[in-house]
Amino acid sequence: MERITSSHNPRVALWRSLKDRKGRQTQNAFLVEGFKSVSEALHTSHRPLALILRDDVDLPFPLPEDVPTYVVPDSLLSTICDTKTPQGIAAVMPLVPQTVRGNRLIALDGVQDPGNVGTILRTADAAGLDGILLSEACADIYSPKVLRATMGSVFHLPCERTQDLPGRLTQLREGGMAILSSVLGGDPFFKALPTLPDAFCLVIGNEGNGISPEVQAVSTHRLMLPMHGNAESLNAAIAAAIMMYALTSKEELAACSM
Amino acid sequence: MERITSSHNPRVALWRSLKDRKGRQTQNAFLVEGFKSVSEALHTSHRPLALILRDDVDLPFPLPEDVPTYVVPDSLLSTICDTKTPQGIAAVMPLVPQTVRGNRLIALDGVQDPGNVGTILRTADAAGLDGILLSEACADIYSPKVLRATMGSVFHLPCERTQDLPGRLTQLREGGMAILSSVLGGDPFFKALPTLPDAFCLVIGNEGNGISPEVQAVSTHRLMLPMHGNAESLNAAIAAAIMMYALTSKEELAACSM
Repeated sequence: MERITSSHNPRVALWRSLKDRKGRQTQNAFLVEGFKSVSEALHTSHRPLALILRDDVDLPFPLPEDVPTYVVPDSLLSTICDTKTPQGIAAVMPLVPQTVRGNRLIALDGVQDPGNVGTILRTADAAGLDGILLSEACADIYSPKVLRATMGSVFHLPCERTQDLPGRLTQLREGGMAILSSVLGGDPFFKALPTLPDAFCLVIGNEGNGISPEVQAVSTHRLMLPMHGNAESLNAAIAAAIMMYALTSKEELAACSM
Repeated sequence: MERITSSHNPRVALWRSLKDRKGRQTQNAFLVEGFKSVSEALHTSHRPLALILRDDVDLPFPLPEDVPTYVVPDSLLSTICDTKTPQGIAAVMPLVPQTVRGNRLIALDGVQDPGNVGTILRTADAAGLDGILLSEACADIYSPKVLRATMGSVFHLPCERTQDLPGRLTQLREGGMAILSSVLGGDPFFKALPTLPDAFCLVIGNEGNGISPEVQAVSTHRLMLPMHGNAESLNAAIAAAIMMYALTSKEELAACSM
């Protein structure tokens, strides 16, 4: 363990820069804050690049011995972390490009709100999906705000960022996967549900503009949730959740012969 | 129309106090901000107590002539409104106690996050529910943050605040309604879905502590959404949305003989 007390220490400057996307890209790393998230990170196959502890922290779990560990005062930790009152632990994790696999995917086409991206990832994990695809215009999944909203789910399922979402979806479609676009004016979702293939990629569009024409063009299905009352729309994370859970609960629903 | 330019005008002080619950309770009024929400408010049966316009605003819709209307400079409006950059219009609406009716209700037992309360109301409206019950510990539905998250849905369905949620749910149960509690360790939701009665009140609990023992005691069903992967929980608004949409789409699902 090394003790750092100076805010001019070059390591501290590097850690601070992980708050910004540019810093994360330059260093191929991101910062994980708090006990729960660091614990989740330690259970992945990726070894942390560094662990950062507040000098008076009580650790609820043992730390790996082969990871460089630094002890810092509270005043320093709060400049490194994004949370206002850091819990006393952070981990620098390597940013490893990932590729989604499996039969049940979700793709985000320009979802920009960090809370929406994080909540969709957390819900995809709970619903049992296999991975998430993100277009370049989406909020960065490794930003502090998104990481907080994922509640650790970023370590549970593959997150693939792509500069060419239409091209990537075309690949998946050619592999036999249904591309389900959630669009205004689409077919009624619950009526279509029984006929939808088991291998699917559900696409959720930008909060204001929806799914881009390029992505709509490669879709196999255009679907829409029923909208009652005077409501005009649903929040993107809410719409994603309703559809993901219905899609992954089809067998349970069918078994009951409603 | 009356022009107000002094920030010491007593009306301005009253309007400002509507940001706080105490002010709203004292005046039996709440403030609605922005074109969309004011337009929704004007379409209800409740007449605004006052309309407040910025002096240079372009109105996209006509204003009622029988409502006291005040014109203020931007510097004043921004001290009255909660939004950082107000759109130029606000309405003071009467706070009228409401009672829920109908067969499809949702009750919130201590949901404290304003974003969650507002999003649940917005989603309940879209899902076609008939009303929402709120326990005393819930975030105030007439606070600026909740109102923003409802996107105008607060004007579409009755919102009843009750100091005795267990008592109110008992009344509903005695009227033949199923009280569906969403609790950890409950029965699998999608398996139970086909057997659930058409008249229901779905209950969503506090973000940290869930549903209170008193409310659980008066429930007719204890249900839980499936939780895959390593996810431990779902956001309260997400869980509410998945269950509300499944409950209101039962007939569509059944008609398809999955």
